Amino acid sequence: MTTSEKALLLHEKWKGKIETTPKCAIQSREDLALAYTPGVAEPCKVIAQKKEAAYQYTLKANTVAVVSDGSAVLGLGNIGAYAAMPVMEGKAALFKAFGGINAFPICLDTQDTEEIIQTIVHIAPAFGGINLEDISAPRCFEIEERLKKLLDIPVFHDDQHGTAIVVLAGIINALKVVGKEKKQCKIVVNGAGSAGIAITKLLLTYGFPFITMCDKSGILSKTTENLNWMQKQMVELTNLEGKTGSLADALKGADIFIGVSAPNIVTKEMVSSMNQDAILFAMANPIPEIMPDIAKAAGARVVGTGRSDFPNQVNNVVAFPGIFKGALEGRAKQITEEMKLAAATAIASLVSDEELSDENIMPQAFDPRVAEIVSNAVKSHIN
Amino acid sequence: MTTSEKALLLHEKWKGKIETTPKCAIQSREDLALAYTPGVAEPCKVIAQKKEAAYQYTLKANTVAVVSDGSAVLGLGNIGAYAAMPVMEGKAALFKAFGGINAFPICLDTQDTEEIIQTIVHIAPAFGGINLEDISAPRCFEIEERLKKLLDIPVFHDDQHGTAIVVLAGIINALKVVGKEKKQCKIVVNGAGSAGIAITKLLLTYGFPFITMCDKSGILSKTTENLNWMQKQMVELTNLEGKTGSLADALKGADIFIGVSAPNIVTKEMVSSMNQDAILFAMANPIPEIMPDIAKAAGARVVGTGRSDFPNQVNNVVAFPGIFKGALEGRAKQITEEMKLAAATAIASLVSDEELSDENIMPQAFDPRVAEIVSNAVKSHIN
Repeated sequence: MTTSEKALLLHEKWKGKIETTPKCAIQSREDLALAYTPGVAEPCKVIAQKKEAAYQYTLKANTVAVVSDGSAVLGLGNIGAYAAMPVMEGKAALFKAFGGINAFPICLDTQDTEEIIQTIVHIAPAFGGINLEDISAPRCFEIEERLKKLLDIPVFHDDQHGTAIVVLAGIINALKVVGKEKKQCKIVVNGAGSAGIAITKLLLTYGFPFITMCDKSGILSKTTENLNWMQKQMVELTNLEGKTGSLADALKGADIFIGVSAPNIVTKEMVSSMNQDAILFAMANPIPEIMPDIAKAAGARVVGTGRSDFPNQVNNVVAFPGIFKGALEGRAKQITEEMKLAAATAIASLVSDEELSDENIMPQAFDPRVAEIVSNAVKSHIN
Repeated sequence: MTTSEKALLLHEKWKGKIETTPKCAIQSREDLALAYTPGVAEPCKVIAQKKEAAYQYTLKANTVAVVSDGSAVLGLGNIGAYAAMPVMEGKAALFKAFGGINAFPICLDTQDTEEIIQTIVHIAPAFGGINLEDISAPRCFEIEERLKKLLDIPVFHDDQHGTAIVVLAGIINALKVVGKEKKQCKIVVNGAGSAGIAITKLLLTYGFPFITMCDKSGILSKTTENLNWMQKQMVELTNLEGKTGSLADALKGADIFIGVSAPNIVTKEMVSSMNQDAILFAMANPIPEIMPDIAKAAGARVVGTGRSDFPNQVNNVVAFPGIFKGALEGRAKQITEEMKLAAATAIASLVSDEELSDENIMPQAFDPRVAEIVSNAVKSHIN
């Protein structure tokens, strides 16, 4: 049986990958009097006096909404709210398994930006944080920015920032392996959607000066047509030489390729045209921009993908559980750039200098230290 | 330590009376490949083709949203979304404990009718049913009616219909005890909010012809001023003699009093003025409209309250878990009047003729047969 067939059967058996479970006993009248009427009136009264007490007496303290409109799900595209459910349930299960955080899927039957924002604002009281997921660009940027202003709980679009954090963690370690400095590296990011833009922004913040973004039409520059408002901001910050041309042109003399784009679009010739000790993160899923063995044969030194069956898996699961764990425990109101940089550095630090190699730059998803160290890094940057 | 003090301490310890728990294993790469990427894409694809498959592969099949705007919480009134959380979490815990149903609290940071309706419509994909809770009248009527038209899943305002069902169940058994027929009984319902109106409607549907509603201003009639739109509908269906006057006037010669109103507003003189073998359901919480011992001393035969420390507790918990269990298992699109009547009859049937007495008309909340028999009654009325 293939993984797909097995997964379908299991999903039918599970009928939901998470369930809600009482933490209070409900086995006697006495139990009912404490967990429900009349005893429940006491915490209600305290919270009515002071809203913040919701963190003391309710699940808000440790619960995240996994919110999607189903407009950009995995490699599946715009499949809508119902079809997005299995992914959001899976994400909710990962939050608990890796971060000890309650999470509930909120799949929105609208793809209207204003309606999405209003709906999330209205349901926010029960949640300590909002994890946005699989919302298409450029709407995702506006939705996140507006929600950050409207809400007093952390809002985090994982496709953007979770991806950016793990990529930065991987790049930090890959540079140690190849012995290059960030100030000298030329980076090409292929894919100018939510992930590509967030990766570029975080790498700029970290201090990589030379980044060029590409998409299907080639290199993005100030003269590129049909850019959305966020891409227009990005061409002000990247491609400082004002290059034009194709992805192949961009890769000539580059040190690092980061792909969040499409299968098999990087050729061995392109890899050969890169600088020595090239680093490639080919993260298109499930088929990467170039297969690791081909990239290696063409001269690449470090190759990462999104897949668990190749070395150097670049996987959000090492980021988001710890990030929300830290933000919730520290009662952060926002997840800041400093927290993201600290999280990336913390993730990178889990691979010791002795362990580091071409084929071992990322900690494992199941390393029990991951969520804890990321959480502590985030907490240490809460004002 | 009082119940209130103990409840407050426990709520602080619990920090949430429910949690979300993975049902799938997440302990290895293989697990992750089945529950998350790449395996999760399979059920997504199937649901994208056929929305109904969400019932087959996601938690929608067995999950209810417990939705409140915090505008009419227990006896606490309009305490808002945050302060309502402990009640909604408690309700969610009861859904699982009594009905085996997942439930999640959705506390809305708006009390605008249109915004509430839109928000619930937008979050509906993840849920198999909507349990409305503690929303003030008359907005609750419009919200429920509109949602029933907009959604293809059951919408049920428990303060209305759950209460109405358990009251009808209790009245059915109380009438057996006193040996009266429904066609001869005069009923007074005191309280013309969501519960009072829903109780009156269901008793009318069941076949009680003579019902008079009262509120703070006395008997409701066609000449009463300041009625809301729903109360105006109710005076067309009740008080057929066109009586006016006070609650005391209404109770003269009445057979049944049903109070969903305020503490201690029924006097022993009022009880004495009722017909022989009077039935009183004094359900104001925690202090009933009249204490059972006073009512009994004044001549009442059967007295029920909302409290667990008196006989004949009239408690929604014998209704809502089984109702949603049946509706979800039978994939009902609505909860109809027939289902409500069937549920009430089923609840009443759990007290056998041998067990029935003045002080034993209701099944116990913890009777394990309750949810099952109610669920089956509901399922047998799904078209």
